[in-house]
Amino acid sequence: MIIQLHQEIAAVQKEAIVKKALTLQYKTTEVKTQHGNYLVGIGKSEFDIRELGHMEGIADIHIVSDNYKLVSKKWKVKPTAIDLGDGVAIRSGDLAVMAGPCSIEGEEQVYKTIAHLKANGVKIMRGGVYKPRSSPYSFRGMGIDGLKMWHKAAREAGIKIITEVMQVSQIAEMHDYVDIFQVGARNTQNFNLLDELGKVDKAVMIKRGISGTVDELLYSAEYVFSGGNEKLILCERGIRTYETSSRNTLDLNSIPVLKEKTHLPVVADPSHGIGIREYVEPMTLASIMAGADGVIFEIHEKPEEAYSDGQQTLNFKESETLIGKINKVFALRESL
Amino acid sequence: MIIQLHQEIAAVQKEAIVKKALTLQYKTTEVKTQHGNYLVGIGKSEFDIRELGHMEGIADIHIVSDNYKLVSKKWKVKPTAIDLGDGVAIRSGDLAVMAGPCSIEGEEQVYKTIAHLKANGVKIMRGGVYKPRSSPYSFRGMGIDGLKMWHKAAREAGIKIITEVMQVSQIAEMHDYVDIFQVGARNTQNFNLLDELGKVDKAVMIKRGISGTVDELLYSAEYVFSGGNEKLILCERGIRTYETSSRNTLDLNSIPVLKEKTHLPVVADPSHGIGIREYVEPMTLASIMAGADGVIFEIHEKPEEAYSDGQQTLNFKESETLIGKINKVFALRESL
Amino acid sequence: MIIQLHQEIAAVQKEAIVKKALTLQYKTTEVKTQHGNYLVGIGKSEFDIRELGHMEGIADIHIVSDNYKLVSKKWKVKPTAIDLGDGVAIRSGDLAVMAGPCSIEGEEQVYKTIAHLKANGVKIMRGGVYKPRSSPYSFRGMGIDGLKMWHKAAREAGIKIITEVMQVSQIAEMHDYVDIFQVGARNTQNFNLLDELGKVDKAVMIKRGISGTVDELLYSAEYVFSGGNEKLILCERGIRTYETSSRNTLDLNSIPVLKEKTHLPVVADPSHGIGIREYVEPMTLASIMAGADGVIFEIHEKPEEAYSDGQQTLNFKESETLIGKINKVFALRESL
Amino acid sequence: MIIQLHQEIAAVQKEAIVKKALTLQYKTTEVKTQHGNYLVGIGKSEFDIRELGHMEGIADIHIVSDNYKLVSKKWKVKPTAIDLGDGVAIRSGDLAVMAGPCSIEGEEQVYKTIAHLKANGVKIMRGGVYKPRSSPYSFRGMGIDGLKMWHKAAREAGIKIITEVMQVSQIAEMHDYVDIFQVGARNTQNFNLLDELGKVDKAVMIKRGISGTVDELLYSAEYVFSGGNEKLILCERGIRTYETSSRNTLDLNSIPVLKEKTHLPVVADPSHGIGIREYVEPMTLASIMAGADGVIFEIHEKPEEAYSDGQQTLNFKESETLIGKINKVFALRESL
Repeated sequence: MIIQLHQEIAAVQKEAIVKKALTLQYKTTEVKTQHGNYLVGIGKSEFDIRELGHMEGIADIHIVSDNYKLVSKKWKVKPTAIDLGDGVAIRSGDLAVMAGPCSIEGEEQVYKTIAHLKANGVKIMRGGVYKPRSSPYSFRGMGIDGLKMWHKAAREAGIKIITEVMQVSQIAEMHDYVDIFQVGARNTQNFNLLDELGKVDKAVMIKRGISGTVDELLYSAEYVFSGGNEKLILCERGIRTYETSSRNTLDLNSIPVLKEKTHLPVVADPSHGIGIREYVEPMTLASIMAGADGVIFEIHEKPEEAYSDGQQTLNFKESETLIGKINKVFALRESL
Repeated sequence: MIIQLHQEIAAVQKEAIVKKALTLQYKTTEVKTQHGNYLVGIGKSEFDIRELGHMEGIADIHIVSDNYKLVSKKWKVKPTAIDLGDGVAIRSGDLAVMAGPCSIEGEEQVYKTIAHLKANGVKIMRGGVYKPRSSPYSFRGMGIDGLKMWHKAAREAGIKIITEVMQVSQIAEMHDYVDIFQVGARNTQNFNLLDELGKVDKAVMIKRGISGTVDELLYSAEYVFSGGNEKLILCERGIRTYETSSRNTLDLNSIPVLKEKTHLPVVADPSHGIGIREYVEPMTLASIMAGADGVIFEIHEKPEEAYSDGQQTLNFKESETLIGKINKVFALRESL
Repeated sequence: MIIQLHQEIAAVQKEAIVKKALTLQYKTTEVKTQHGNYLVGIGKSEFDIRELGHMEGIADIHIVSDNYKLVSKKWKVKPTAIDLGDGVAIRSGDLAVMAGPCSIEGEEQVYKTIAHLKANGVKIMRGGVYKPRSSPYSFRGMGIDGLKMWHKAAREAGIKIITEVMQVSQIAEMHDYVDIFQVGARNTQNFNLLDELGKVDKAVMIKRGISGTVDELLYSAEYVFSGGNEKLILCERGIRTYETSSRNTLDLNSIPVLKEKTHLPVVADPSHGIGIREYVEPMTLASIMAGADGVIFEIHEKPEEAYSDGQQTLNFKESETLIGKINKVFALRESL
Repeated sequence: MIIQLHQEIAAVQKEAIVKKALTLQYKTTEVKTQHGNYLVGIGKSEFDIRELGHMEGIADIHIVSDNYKLVSKKWKVKPTAIDLGDGVAIRSGDLAVMAGPCSIEGEEQVYKTIAHLKANGVKIMRGGVYKPRSSPYSFRGMGIDGLKMWHKAAREAGIKIITEVMQVSQIAEMHDYVDIFQVGARNTQNFNLLDELGKVDKAVMIKRGISGTVDELLYSAEYVFSGGNEKLILCERGIRTYETSSRNTLDLNSIPVLKEKTHLPVVADPSHGIGIREYVEPMTLASIMAGADGVIFEIHEKPEEAYSDGQQTLNFKESETLIGKINKVFALRESL
């Protein structure tokens, strides 16, 4: 059950609602976000919604049968739009294109990538400055200094930044230099990180876990939302299966399924999803047809020299070609 | 190694080649298909291809490093087209649409389905008369009589038939009433069935196994090809993963991967792939964008009354809408 | 619902029961096995069991909520024992040891293996004469002549034979030379083969599918049982997962789960399950502790020269050591 | 390559080795643990080990072909023993038994559990005070106060504590009240947490990821080890597969595989592994036979009233029975 409260609700009114809910065997959690003030009620008993509905301070009440609540489409049918400012948004009915290198490697790389993105109308740049690596001996990213350098260049060009945050202590230092915090596939169930991102007024994109279910992804989003942050994006990035002919198995089935279950925008990451350069194009176009609200892919001037993930990274020429096709496929989808 | 022989090769010439290959430590299997006469050589040693190349009776020699040979694109770059006659074909650069019920249930159903297909320009009808069912107590299909009734109706309407064959003994009885023999996901590695289908001059569509790899699908095709039948189609129909929000996980990654590995046409089955009616449309359109040469989906006048698979079956109105979109998406793909 | 009928039931009595069941909305299938005569009723409605219970010809009635019926423990709590004659049996409370080569390769191999088994008290020999192989170019087994040779040697030594049957047409020719027909992991859902094995009065061991669920294995057994053959053994042989450090993932969890769900004996195959020689011993002993009623493993005088599966095959010395440990571990298990 | 340095090595000597390694195209990372001082060299070129071997300050050099280095058995054949003090250790050739509730719930529960453990000779108690939960609305544990209360009770009784740490900021506050830090399955690739645990002189037990490979588990251990902490234990706790008849798939194959790859002790967690109370006993005994150096399982006075995981938790009577059997099975294993 989700109880939407009036913004100007009095403390005594709220208290009365919490008490009444308890008598109906619902334990409530208060959630205050950028856009609303809610009581999320967890319980199992059935009751007459009018017992609560008449109470003062309540704007609306919704029964949500899913185990995740605030991210469910069952109470909020209208899709959530993530506004990044300057006319850049990620939302249903639109197609956000995000591209950039796996790792931020240096100033020259950043400037060249930005120039490429601008020339092709892409407004959001991806890149890693903190890199989760299986081996402790691998390159782990340029860190906060790399981010600041990148941010300066991106701001000058009017480009938004999405980058991965790996732990709680990085949030504060990264905050002013980031437009979208990305939660990586290995941190989808890092609940402390999700809790803290709930306290931030910045967009957060959560990747599906390495072998995460669709429902687990929604639960992880519920952590951030119930922490106070509605600015959420979900990302399909491929799951782990027995098949070895692709790096991961980009699970496009999750896109229509998620679009049915949640009001949050859903993005596809074909670079990690299939993990092989020559197949990124068809999988990107297929993602759009499956209903994605955005795509994110890896590009590099010289993929073969990239510090990481070169095998799944497009060069600028391939990127340009792909972006042209993306625009046509999206236009067709919207016209159907 | 694949040695293409001249059609008019003399027995003594062939024998000499086999002997020579043995001295190079290659064991050969002779394969005679509708289109060619081959010696497939299995061995590991490296040798100078000119040692064989000059021999009489040889049209061409190809080194194929894959473990599957005749189905590999490494020796036959040109895509294989499956011609069903009357201008109906399944081939790269075209889009074959196949639709029909899960099970053939009776005459009325067959005639209504055919009328719907004709009205929408669909030339191949699917339907099961032998149904593999987990439980021995479930409906197992109308059998050969159902097939004959269906065949009569389809022939009158100029519609081709694709239907599943489950065991060797059914091949002969079904032969004259079938345009494409389908090998189901539970029989992908039924090697005796594949052997026998190699002896037939009819198209065969092999579905990927329930948890089959892309390579295993190619090996299964190799069985049929090396048995003598080149008229092969591969079908992605979803794999088994841990995810339960869709029935199976339609693995669209396999489509560009297969198109790269083999010269055979590749078809997608979104009905079984995602297994939920309302998501069949986006997954069908995504399959086309991923590069499929055809799509196969389940339709029924009243899906809720279908003998099997109703939950993933489109009604005629949904089917009509989908076919319209399929045509537009395919047209766009070819224009990119 | 399972209705056990009196052996001497009159046709008119049976007919009356079938009709009465229909009025209760249960469709019945008659099953006549070596040990009983049953009506299996499939339906969903609830009814008072006394409405049927008083009818003549009925020995007992059982409500079985599982989708599989005859193999369920819910109606037959007493474990089924598979008696192979000459004091050899596979049954709960006992431990059947089965060993032998992956492929039967020739007479010398057969005689040496039998000598090894006899010296170590093993009474059932495994070996393949029809081999399912991914590639059509691999060794496919010695066939029926190999089986006859093997059978002669085994009979002289008082050794029982378990070997794989791959297709319906092999059943008759193999029948007199086999003590247990094995259904391989690629044929677990070859329903025609299962149907035919239901008509045979020989023990059948069904391996779990490559990625088969526990319930699918039980359904497959239901096919054979409902076909008329109660002499069934189930075999855990490892499933397909994402993990590559072992060939398959021997799923010992399935053993206590199966022992709870069915009255049939359950055997473990650690050779295929883990697929690496040096780990066969610990996994065999672990299988026993997990509750297996038997173990089956691959041995060869010279594993490195075996025609197939050498990497997971024990030599005779390793086999002797393992058998000694098996006996001790089983003795401890029974004493706990 | 692992270069073991003399403890008293001079800075200039170390510098010379690092430089020399670079000329051989090996990048080195210095690692200083409780037991040794190492240079881990990452590179691919082959070289004559004598080029380095003669240099001053070097105690020993090992070529380790695995991608993980310090946790590999290839350089340290002798098993690592984790000494918790007071005669309690986790090590090869011994069997550590760890038991306790899923969640620490209160004082009475703690005291009763401790009494049960003492009566049964168990010296390590498990319990969660920080609980990773899929839903943000579930009970998340008693936190640091619960840990302090538990620690007091455990110390009085001479019982060691293993409990999960979920994030970096908890390490310091928990440090003095914990004997083994547990890294949960959702944090196996939380590399920041692993880095920090490398700086602590306390034992760390890392659980295999929800769908983690054996190699990823070893890489995660490499993080802690290369951070400076050799006191590592690995834990098999079941993986995610398509099978739903058990909660997870306890992968006992990983135990002999890990024992072959690493010198670290390996523990099995059958409670999470199979996740169903009545099957915990056979899977625990099977784990021992598979070669586990320890087992960890969940117990509760009244499982049906446990705050979490009740369905997989043994009551005290079941626990007592199991511990008796554990002792017998372990004794047999060591005698084989």
